[in-house]
Amino acid sequence: MLLCDIGNTSYHFYDGTRDYKAPVEAFEPAAVSEPVYFICVNPSVSKRVESLSNWHNLRPMIDWEHYYPTMGIDRVCACEAVSDGVIVDAGSAITVDLVRGGRFVGGFISPGLKALREAYLAVSNALDYSFNFEMQLDKMPSNSRDAVTYGTLGLVVREVRRLNAPVILTGGDAQTLHPLLPDAALEPLLLFRGMTKIIQKAQPC
Amino acid sequence: MLLCDIGNTSYHFYDGTRDYKAPVEAFEPAAVSEPVYFICVNPSVSKRVESLSNWHNLRPMIDWEHYYPTMGIDRVCACEAVSDGVIVDAGSAITVDLVRGGRFVGGFISPGLKALREAYLAVSNALDYSFNFEMQLDKMPSNSRDAVTYGTLGLVVREVRRLNAPVILTGGDAQTLHPLLPDAALEPLLLFRGMTKIIQKAQPC
Repeated sequence: MLLCDIGNTSYHFYDGTRDYKAPVEAFEPAAVSEPVYFICVNPSVSKRVESLSNWHNLRPMIDWEHYYPTMGIDRVCACEAVSDGVIVDAGSAITVDLVRGGRFVGGFISPGLKALREAYLAVSNALDYSFNFEMQLDKMPSNSRDAVTYGTLGLVVREVRRLNAPVILTGGDAQTLHPLLPDAALEPLLLFRGMTKIIQKAQPC
Repeated sequence: MLLCDIGNTSYHFYDGTRDYKAPVEAFEPAAVSEPVYFICVNPSVSKRVESLSNWHNLRPMIDWEHYYPTMGIDRVCACEAVSDGVIVDAGSAITVDLVRGGRFVGGFISPGLKALREAYLAVSNALDYSFNFEMQLDKMPSNSRDAVTYGTLGLVVREVRRLNAPVILTGGDAQTLHPLLPDAALEPLLLFRGMTKIIQKAQPC
């Protein structure tokens, strides 16, 4: 059995011991013969894999009672993996979700590092600064690079700290963000842990 | 005498009683015969107007002691107009600057509303939500539109509120942001007030 998290750019597989990625454009899902349990945020890929009998969508297995219908299924899976904590999933978007007592409390979405950099550049070449992942966030910035970092990423990090719960950092940019959240636990396979829990709940025996 | 704030897209004039704008591409600065005191964040336009004898750059008239050299001159002028307060200038970027006792303390920069919307869209069509300018910001969001609003604009507004100083709202999107900062003073001509102060300081008699 394989688990697969299908994003906008890649299929991310986990076979229980190792994970690996395949690009969305190049990969042929029909080439996989074993059972695959998947989540997918990419509607065109979703249609394609659902037509294959060994690919099983996790969406209908989820108890949606405490989530909202348009919530990204990757965020839901991450929340299912956690009892108490703030999940920061830093990928093409940065999602921040608070779970208390095993229940989703609320969360927010920022564009990811790449999209934020591009947004500053779209405003002006004068804002073309790389983020300062080492910056102090406890006082108001007094230089351009820190002013740019603080105005988006810094505010996200400050809000995560303010929530005052254990922080779990996942997603492709988790390692990059780690210096700003040094006490966070890095969990690159968090989503797969959530997916496993969902499958276990849905197949209790 | 005219004051002029030259941005990336327009010349913004003020003649002491009324203000008006002209687009950067179409306007011919040599057509103005009276003295103009200007600030400019647009390097190519700056070169052009500086060659004209009646256009006077305000930059060398500013006491830069409490500012940093790469700080946008529009932010500096806004700060010069204020003794105590948080200045939120919502235009192509949103700049937030804190002034206490007539001195700049620090500030930060977020992309403006348009660039933020485009950044979300660049991540995914699933994040194509208009901002909710009426949303409550005192609890974590539990729907997609609020999650998107909160993750950028909402965090900026929460930080502005946290600074616990009188808020002055200026820039092209000031009116749009006002519902999120209902106690803020709207001051569309703040920059010109700062420019006037700088000229008065530089020409004391």
